[in-house]
Amino acid sequence: MKNYVAEILGTFAILFCGTGAIIINQETHGAITHVGVAMTFGLIVTSMIYALGNISGAHFNPAVTIAFTVAGKFPVRQVLPYIVSQLAGAVLASATLRYLFPANELLGATLPAGSEAQSFILEFILTFFLMLVILNVAYGSKEQGMFAGLAIGAVVLLEAMFAGPICGASMNPARSFSPALVSGHLEHLWLYLVAPTAGAVAAVFIWRYLTRPATVADL
Amino acid sequence: MKNYVAEILGTFAILFCGTGAIIINQETHGAITHVGVAMTFGLIVTSMIYALGNISGAHFNPAVTIAFTVAGKFPVRQVLPYIVSQLAGAVLASATLRYLFPANELLGATLPAGSEAQSFILEFILTFFLMLVILNVAYGSKEQGMFAGLAIGAVVLLEAMFAGPICGASMNPARSFSPALVSGHLEHLWLYLVAPTAGAVAAVFIWRYLTRPATVADL
Amino acid sequence: MKNYVAEILGTFAILFCGTGAIIINQETHGAITHVGVAMTFGLIVTSMIYALGNISGAHFNPAVTIAFTVAGKFPVRQVLPYIVSQLAGAVLASATLRYLFPANELLGATLPAGSEAQSFILEFILTFFLMLVILNVAYGSKEQGMFAGLAIGAVVLLEAMFAGPICGASMNPARSFSPALVSGHLEHLWLYLVAPTAGAVAAVFIWRYLTRPATVADL
Amino acid sequence: MKNYVAEILGTFAILFCGTGAIIINQETHGAITHVGVAMTFGLIVTSMIYALGNISGAHFNPAVTIAFTVAGKFPVRQVLPYIVSQLAGAVLASATLRYLFPANELLGATLPAGSEAQSFILEFILTFFLMLVILNVAYGSKEQGMFAGLAIGAVVLLEAMFAGPICGASMNPARSFSPALVSGHLEHLWLYLVAPTAGAVAAVFIWRYLTRPATVADL
Repeated sequence: MKNYVAEILGTFAILFCGTGAIIINQETHGAITHVGVAMTFGLIVTSMIYALGNISGAHFNPAVTIAFTVAGKFPVRQVLPYIVSQLAGAVLASATLRYLFPANELLGATLPAGSEAQSFILEFILTFFLMLVILNVAYGSKEQGMFAGLAIGAVVLLEAMFAGPICGASMNPARSFSPALVSGHLEHLWLYLVAPTAGAVAAVFIWRYLTRPATVADL
Repeated sequence: MKNYVAEILGTFAILFCGTGAIIINQETHGAITHVGVAMTFGLIVTSMIYALGNISGAHFNPAVTIAFTVAGKFPVRQVLPYIVSQLAGAVLASATLRYLFPANELLGATLPAGSEAQSFILEFILTFFLMLVILNVAYGSKEQGMFAGLAIGAVVLLEAMFAGPICGASMNPARSFSPALVSGHLEHLWLYLVAPTAGAVAAVFIWRYLTRPATVADL
Repeated sequence: MKNYVAEILGTFAILFCGTGAIIINQETHGAITHVGVAMTFGLIVTSMIYALGNISGAHFNPAVTIAFTVAGKFPVRQVLPYIVSQLAGAVLASATLRYLFPANELLGATLPAGSEAQSFILEFILTFFLMLVILNVAYGSKEQGMFAGLAIGAVVLLEAMFAGPICGASMNPARSFSPALVSGHLEHLWLYLVAPTAGAVAAVFIWRYLTRPATVADL
Repeated sequence: MKNYVAEILGTFAILFCGTGAIIINQETHGAITHVGVAMTFGLIVTSMIYALGNISGAHFNPAVTIAFTVAGKFPVRQVLPYIVSQLAGAVLASATLRYLFPANELLGATLPAGSEAQSFILEFILTFFLMLVILNVAYGSKEQGMFAGLAIGAVVLLEAMFAGPICGASMNPARSFSPALVSGHLEHLWLYLVAPTAGAVAAVFIWRYLTRPATVADL
């Protein structure tokens, strides 16, 4: 049970702080700035990995859970409870933010600024690189593992920074699901469920190739 | 005595730099920006943890001292001298800032931008997650301990970033007490004494659950 | 082959995120800000070093590959495939960005704001210090090696921050080559091929002197 | 000789990037912003510590060299060549910046925005805390030593961030000496030679007290 509680807490924190930053930036007419919003998203991920990483593995993201399972690194029977925990934590965060900021309409929901195709491709690539970093630091050298929290938070920060104004830089179905559900803006939600999951799974195949033991064919 | 001096120095530094950033930002009509203020708060905490952590444990915060005591990790007879040291360091910092910037009225005091209830809930949640991170990195794996300064400073930075414009993002009764006292703005101070302390203590119970050794009931 | 794939992926990521930040900043009339662009460049380098460093050595930059070879730390027969991989990854990134943002003219190409001489000297010095840090953290103490990703990303971030508005802060022939090629703005490109390479090679000679074993002449 | 070359290189880099950021921010009408300038100063210090720390000890600052000597951790006969190396590197950087940006008048010189007394007190306190962090991470636990580059760079970044608009946040006589000399603005220079040195030396006495072995009197 502890790992489920850790996933609820971590995903709650990411949604509460990250989409909270978007909401408070709107409510205060830009006091936080886009740079501040991106820093908030990256640093809460780093903090939660160092705090809860050795309890639940610090997924906080259904796309990450599914990709770990495809990679054979996570038991299939745990997938559903992990995703339910992540969605529960996320919805609880959006509901708390709705209570605190009742006048905010979107609650930090992700919406494409341009075409759906543009945002789909962006979300696919963003989550592909996020998952590539996660897999390589999680299963690489001891040194890589120690800096996992920094490297993964850095990817979230920089991807939220540069791609946020176009696609919202979700990279996480739970992060898009809960503001969409609580605010009632379910249009485009399919995109943020499918593209990050597809991108994360695609990274598994590249990672398998990169870390496959050398064989005679490599000589 | 050394640990009390370390608590005085660390809390002085956090107040001098952190509320100094707010004051100088006001005096210079926004030269530092809110992003710069939040970075100042987070990085001074990180620096002081690496500098003084192995002398006093780097509390610098009465809510943290009380929560450690509730967790059974800090001796009860040390609570009062620690809190007195923290308040002394904080008041000394606010007095120095008052001397350097005599025209500044608020000296960085925390005030709710909206309702007291909104800021109370925010401060409770902010300090809950701050203390959850502190407990998990302080008593977790060796790797977690090494990155404690970064993880804790990151939480302070990001919470100051996103919640600062609404509640001031105090998370620390000493941080709110001294500017309120020296500037004479004691209205709302109760909120910043009670909510962070309650949030930090609440985190102890979740942390106990998360790190409780596995029992037969978990099988 | 794996190291070539890692170089393609890493250089793709740096160009996609870094020049993507410049492009999206232009398309959104400054939503990301110059500070955000510089942070994107630095953090993607840090992330890719921790993710791919132990597969390919994380060059992602022809000037770095050439300098490592001059330093006797990289086999001559690998230079061409490494540079081809880096250019391929970079061009693929610029082509993807052209597809996603067809109205953007420059695609993040580097152009001197002032004279070519001014930007040449700047690029030489920027890459000299980048390579000096790379060599010293890569072949220094164990501690230096662990923090290599942070130190190298920090140099990229700060040099992009302060010098970007004058010379573009390329420090990397592949980073300048692909936007120039895909956008058709090949004017000034020679500068960004020659100056970073010369600066990186110059750093090798200083590094050799700094790390030469002590001899009788030093006594 | 190698340690002198390392001090020249490191101090050149700090001046070239840090005061370069101030100059380019002026030349481009604020493209870098004050936040960007402060980040540049902090990150170049972090990078140079990881790159050159095990060659020269990474002082790059006459106040640090003098304070280490007072602490009995640095040989007296090395003080003069270290300070000469630091000043030489700094002047070389300011001369290069003068050549690159001939129209810039101040070259990043530090000047008090208010009274000299206000800036003197600020510089004293800033350098006191900088040196306190340096001493504690340099001679503390192994973990503290590993994170020395981050902790020291963080202090420089945050102190440049919050105090820069008032006193320039020099914390380093070499950093103030060379722009003053090359630009001819020697007014107020005494302040930036005396206050940082006094603050750094004061930190030695507090550090000695904090790290003194326990005696019977402590029981």
